[in-house]
Amino acid sequence: MAQCCILGAGNWATAFARVLADAGHDVTLVARRPVIADGVNQRHHNPSYLSDIELGPTVGATTDPVRGLAGADLVVLALPAQHLRGYLRHLATLPVWRDATAPVLSLVKGIETGTDMRMSEVIEQVGGVPTARIAVLSGPNLAREIAERQPSLSVVAAREAAVGELVQQWCLTPSFRAYTLDDVVGVEIAGAAKNVIALAVGMGEGLGYGHNALASLITRGLHQVAALGEAMGGRRETFAGLAGLGDLVATCMSPLSRNRTFGERLGRGLGVEEAARESRGVAEGVATSRAVRDLARAYEVDMPIVSGVVEVLEGRTSPAALVPVLMQREPKPEW
Amino acid sequence: MAQCCILGAGNWATAFARVLADAGHDVTLVARRPVIADGVNQRHHNPSYLSDIELGPTVGATTDPVRGLAGADLVVLALPAQHLRGYLRHLATLPVWRDATAPVLSLVKGIETGTDMRMSEVIEQVGGVPTARIAVLSGPNLAREIAERQPSLSVVAAREAAVGELVQQWCLTPSFRAYTLDDVVGVEIAGAAKNVIALAVGMGEGLGYGHNALASLITRGLHQVAALGEAMGGRRETFAGLAGLGDLVATCMSPLSRNRTFGERLGRGLGVEEAARESRGVAEGVATSRAVRDLARAYEVDMPIVSGVVEVLEGRTSPAALVPVLMQREPKPEW
Repeated sequence: MAQCCILGAGNWATAFARVLADAGHDVTLVARRPVIADGVNQRHHNPSYLSDIELGPTVGATTDPVRGLAGADLVVLALPAQHLRGYLRHLATLPVWRDATAPVLSLVKGIETGTDMRMSEVIEQVGGVPTARIAVLSGPNLAREIAERQPSLSVVAAREAAVGELVQQWCLTPSFRAYTLDDVVGVEIAGAAKNVIALAVGMGEGLGYGHNALASLITRGLHQVAALGEAMGGRRETFAGLAGLGDLVATCMSPLSRNRTFGERLGRGLGVEEAARESRGVAEGVATSRAVRDLARAYEVDMPIVSGVVEVLEGRTSPAALVPVLMQREPKPEW
Repeated sequence: MAQCCILGAGNWATAFARVLADAGHDVTLVARRPVIADGVNQRHHNPSYLSDIELGPTVGATTDPVRGLAGADLVVLALPAQHLRGYLRHLATLPVWRDATAPVLSLVKGIETGTDMRMSEVIEQVGGVPTARIAVLSGPNLAREIAERQPSLSVVAAREAAVGELVQQWCLTPSFRAYTLDDVVGVEIAGAAKNVIALAVGMGEGLGYGHNALASLITRGLHQVAALGEAMGGRRETFAGLAGLGDLVATCMSPLSRNRTFGERLGRGLGVEEAARESRGVAEGVATSRAVRDLARAYEVDMPIVSGVVEVLEGRTSPAALVPVLMQREPKPEW
């Protein structure tokens, strides 16, 4: 039995707390708001996220990262991508963080705007965690379904095989299972860029596209994402796997995906601000879109679907302009 | 402007007739039933398939293959997979078929039961058509959407590049566009085996699986199909493209897919005969499942999802047995 500390207390943090608890571990969620910590400790429910899910007696919570981190065998980061740096800056001031030797597992999907860094790079640079201790979990993992114990597969990527295998063992339950991989770069690029493709697919839906066109957007989009991932040192099969294809398909099938829904509103003709009002916040993929576009430029990879999404987000074109991007008139070979 | 003869007059034949007509060609559908030929000729609608679609004055029909084939620059085969052999046997007795030099384009998806042959192999063997004249079209191509001129992408595979490029040019319209490929084996295996995976995904839906599990089934299913395709001489990127991933995703997203719907009925607990009654006929994937399983054995490729589907179809296990196939308890690397 391990002591697990999850930094964050949103949907994904709450769902993953249940996975770790189901696997037999003690879990502490570190929440920002006392009302969440109190709810988890007193009523075994997170009052703000997945509030109908019973977390059981082995899941506790605190607002104090020092208490959460003390004695942790596994540290899980489950924060929004663009908040990670600020949080790690704070953690890096704490002796309990600086002296820790436990594996650090990132559930964070996104690319940091401004720096265009992957999450594990931020964890290493700002958090001072050596690469060998970092693992990344990703896959077709809609949080609500995992919290409801619906069968789900995932992947854990780590440079150090032993760290990946440890995490794999620690989160194995009858309904959740992670495969190991060593391709951290591929898993992180896949997880971040799929939100951009989900925005494009959402726009297509908002425009009234059929399934043929949406499936083509998914296929061509993933192809472009894989080309970027490969240029950055990732492996193509990662993108054909659960963290690439699997995650993208789950996101595009589900009515629960924030990025797809946000794209749908843009496709229906709303501006970014209006869509953000209807969605109560801007979807993560919006920030990541520009970062992915920047990476594509830096690595000289052609990503017309991502460029199209960024142009729509910046108000320089309309979602309908995605049609010619997809249906460019020059017939050519597929690869 | 080319003369195109489409052998068959079902949904896909009717939709593709409209593509060729939109691209500026004269089209003759060869129907089995006079009522269909009369409807197309007199009212420009196929009365039995996609009957609301206006076919226009450049689409005609006949019940006589000799009349349809006379002077054809392109011959399109759009028949059910298991009927292809019998039809080709008849064609092979006709001088107009035997003397033809036009490209033969197959829209047929499936593997022949009994022989485990791909459609282009049947066309070559029974129809006596040299490989160099054969092309195969496949992709995320729900017939109704194509008939409605919704944007759709596809691939054309041919051994002879010139044949593939000719077909590509001839079916290029503002809403339909095919990429060329030279991987006939990969495109045919992808198109046939996706129906088996669609049956599995349908079963998962019928059992109440969430999107995480369905996306995992799609990912692992495609991985297994690609392994078979590769063993048979196809190329892995074909399976990551429109004919593999694209077609599978469109099929699994659409409520229109017969195979997925058939699987869903099995997942809800109906037997094969009851599901066939509700579906007015057995879905194509049912016949192809056994053929794909046989190919997997012959090429020594591990395809647990396909084997699981066949066991359900043969009444030897229940769809719920697919859960352990997907969630096998032994944790391991993804590839």
